[in-house]
Amino acid sequence: MSRVVKLAVIPGDGIGREVVAQAERVLDAVTADGDVAFEKTRFSLGAGRYLETGDTLTDDDLAAIRSHDAILLGAVGGTPGDPRLKDANIERGMLLKLRFELDHYVNLRPSKLFAGAPGPLASPGEIDFVVVREGTEGPYVGNGGSIRKGTPHEIANETSVNTAFGIERVVRYAFELAGRRRNKLTLVHKTNVLVHSGAIWQRIVEQVASEHPDVVVDYLHVDAATIFLVTDPSRFDVIVTDNLFGDILTDLAGAVTGGIGLAASGNINPDGTFPSMFEPVHGSAPDIAGQEKADPTAAILSVALLLDHLGLRDEAARVQRAVEADIADRSTPRSTSEAGDAIIARLQA
Amino acid sequence: MSRVVKLAVIPGDGIGREVVAQAERVLDAVTADGDVAFEKTRFSLGAGRYLETGDTLTDDDLAAIRSHDAILLGAVGGTPGDPRLKDANIERGMLLKLRFELDHYVNLRPSKLFAGAPGPLASPGEIDFVVVREGTEGPYVGNGGSIRKGTPHEIANETSVNTAFGIERVVRYAFELAGRRRNKLTLVHKTNVLVHSGAIWQRIVEQVASEHPDVVVDYLHVDAATIFLVTDPSRFDVIVTDNLFGDILTDLAGAVTGGIGLAASGNINPDGTFPSMFEPVHGSAPDIAGQEKADPTAAILSVALLLDHLGLRDEAARVQRAVEADIADRSTPRSTSEAGDAIIARLQA
Ligand SMILES: CC(C)[C@H](C(=O)O)[C@@H](O)C(=O)O
Ligand SMILES: CC(C)[C@H](C(=O)O)[C@@H](O)C(=O)O
Repeated sequence: MSRVVKLAVIPGDGIGREVVAQAERVLDAVTADGDVAFEKTRFSLGAGRYLETGDTLTDDDLAAIRSHDAILLGAVGGTPGDPRLKDANIERGMLLKLRFELDHYVNLRPSKLFAGAPGPLASPGEIDFVVVREGTEGPYVGNGGSIRKGTPHEIANETSVNTAFGIERVVRYAFELAGRRRNKLTLVHKTNVLVHSGAIWQRIVEQVASEHPDVVVDYLHVDAATIFLVTDPSRFDVIVTDNLFGDILTDLAGAVTGGIGLAASGNINPDGTFPSMFEPVHGSAPDIAGQEKADPTAAILSVALLLDHLGLRDEAARVQRAVEADIADRSTPRSTSEAGDAIIARLQA
Repeated sequence: MSRVVKLAVIPGDGIGREVVAQAERVLDAVTADGDVAFEKTRFSLGAGRYLETGDTLTDDDLAAIRSHDAILLGAVGGTPGDPRLKDANIERGMLLKLRFELDHYVNLRPSKLFAGAPGPLASPGEIDFVVVREGTEGPYVGNGGSIRKGTPHEIANETSVNTAFGIERVVRYAFELAGRRRNKLTLVHKTNVLVHSGAIWQRIVEQVASEHPDVVVDYLHVDAATIFLVTDPSRFDVIVTDNLFGDILTDLAGAVTGGIGLAASGNINPDGTFPSMFEPVHGSAPDIAGQEKADPTAAILSVALLLDHLGLRDEAARVQRAVEADIADRSTPRSTSEAGDAIIARLQA
C-alpha cells in the first residue's frame, strides 16, 4: 500500500446510518484491489448524540475530524417536533458548523438525469449540469438577532454577508469547472432586488469572466432559474450561486432528476487546508428510518465524488458507471442493502 | 351609475402595454352593463419613462396614483444590458416602491392548473393553491450596503428585516383565506438556517393558529417546498411565506401550472388605506415586445382579482369562467388581441 487515506465517517441520524453503511461497502469494494488504503474513524454526531450527551459538535470532535483527509457524512436531524430537540439546532450546530469551520467554500452539486431514472417532467430532455453553491457566507452566516422578542413589537433581522474574497474563490472554481465541461456558466442571484449582494456577485463574475473568454456567461434571477429548471433544464451547464439560492436550486434540481434519493454533493475545501466532506443532499428522513427503505444511491454517488476529489478517478468512474447501470435497470422495490448489493455486483462484473 | 371606481392604469414597458390593452377591453366588456363606472387614468411609468425623463416614480406620480381606488399594472423593465439603464433600478425604484409606499402587505398569487393548460409535469394532479407572500419586508427592504466597494476587500451586506407587526397581519390574512378554502395552511421558510427570521415567523404562525383550530398547519423548508411543487403540488392549499421565498415559489408555481403567461397577482392593502395593485406575475419580455405575441391571460386574470377585490364578485367570476373556457379550448396560435377577442366573445356568450 503506497497511500493511506484517513476517512472520517459520520453516519448521523435516521436513514443516514443505513445509506452510509452501503456507501462504505461500495467504497471498500472499489478500493479493495488498489494501492490506497482507507483508514476509517467513525464519529457519532447528530440528534442521537445530542440526546445522549447534549453535545452537537465539540472542539474535540472538530479537532479530531480536522485531522482526517476527507469526510463521508450520511444525514443529521431528529424527528421534527421532538420536544427534546427544541433548543438544539443540529443543522447549524453541527452540519453548518463543519462546513464553515472546514472552510467548505465550494458546495458542489451535480445534477444529471440518468437513463431510466424516474422524474416528474413530461419531456425533461438531457439534464446534465452542476451547481457550484457558495458554502461559507451569504444569508447562511447566522448574523442576526431579534429585539423585543416574543412581543408584538419584535423585530428580527438576518444579515447576508458577501465578500469579494469569498465570492471570487468560488467563482474561479466555477469558471474552471465550466472550462472542463461545456463552457457555459450561469450566475443565479436576485440582483434587481438584493442590490448590494447582487452587485458584488455580478462584478466578480464579470471580472473573472474576462480571464475565461471561452466560457459563455449567462445571468438569471433566482425566480426565473426555477422556471427554467422545470421547463428547459438542458440549458444549464454550470450554475454558480450563493448559499441560499444554491440550497433551493439543488433541491429542485434533485427533484427534476429523479428525486433527492439520487442527489450527491461535495462540500469542498479546494485549497486542501481542511478535509472535504461528501454527503447525499437528502436528510435523515426519520419517518422511514430503521426500515431499510432508503435508497442509498445518493450516498454511493457521494463516494464517487469523494474518490474523484482524492484523485482516484478510475475508481470514481467505476462507481459512477455501476450506479448508472443500476438505475437503468431497476425493477422491483429493494431494501437499502439489496440496493447496495446490486451496485456492488455491477462494480465487480 | 351608483358607483365610480377610479382606476390607475400603468401599462409599463414591453409586452406590459400589449397585455394591459386586452385586460382593459375585458374590464370594459364585463362592466359595460353594470352600475359601476371605471374612471381610468393612465400613468406612463417604467423604463420607457425613465429613458425619456430620468424619472422612475416621482412624488407627484405617487400622490396621483394614491388618489385612485385601484391600480392595474402591466409589467416594467427595459432590455437587459441596455447601457442607458445601467444606473436605473426600475424594479426597486418603481415596482417595489409602489408596493412599499402603498403598503401592499399581501402579495396574493393563486396557482391553479386549468383544464387544458399545458404544463411541464407528467402527472400534475389537481393543482389549486394560493401563495400569500408578504410584500413589505423581509430581504426586500433594501437595507444593505457595501464597504471597500470594487476592491478585493469589498464586503456587501444585505439585511432581512422581519417584524411581528408585519408578519402577524399577513399571517392573519392567510389563515382567514385558508378558512374560506380547504383549511390547510403551509408556512414556508428556512427556520433551520435563518434562525432569527425563521423563529419570528414560526412563533406568529403558531400564535395565530391557536385562533383557527379548524385550519391544519404544516411547515416546509423552502428547499423542500420546491420539491413538492413539482412532485406533489396537490398537497398545497394556502402557502404563507416571506417576500423572497414567495417570489421564488410563485414563479415555480406559475411554471408548473402552465407558465407565467397564465399567472395573475394582487398586491393588496387589505386595510383599504391605499389602492391595491393587480398585475401579471410575468415581466415585460422585451424580446417579444411589440409583436403581439404575448399571452394576455395573466393580465386578464389580474382583472378578475381586481374585480373580486372591489367586491364585484359576479364580474370576477364571469372573467374567470371566460378565461377557463378559453384555456380549455385553445388551438391555433393567436395574437395578443385575438386572445383578447376570444375571451371577450366567451364573456358575451
Ligand atoms: C440541513 C440544511 C442546513 C442544509 C442546507 O440548508 O444547506 C440542507 O438543506 C442542504 O442543502 O444540505
Ligand atoms: C421584478 C421583481 C422586482 C419582482 C419581485 O421580485 O417581486 C417580480 O419578480 C415579481 O415576482 O413580481
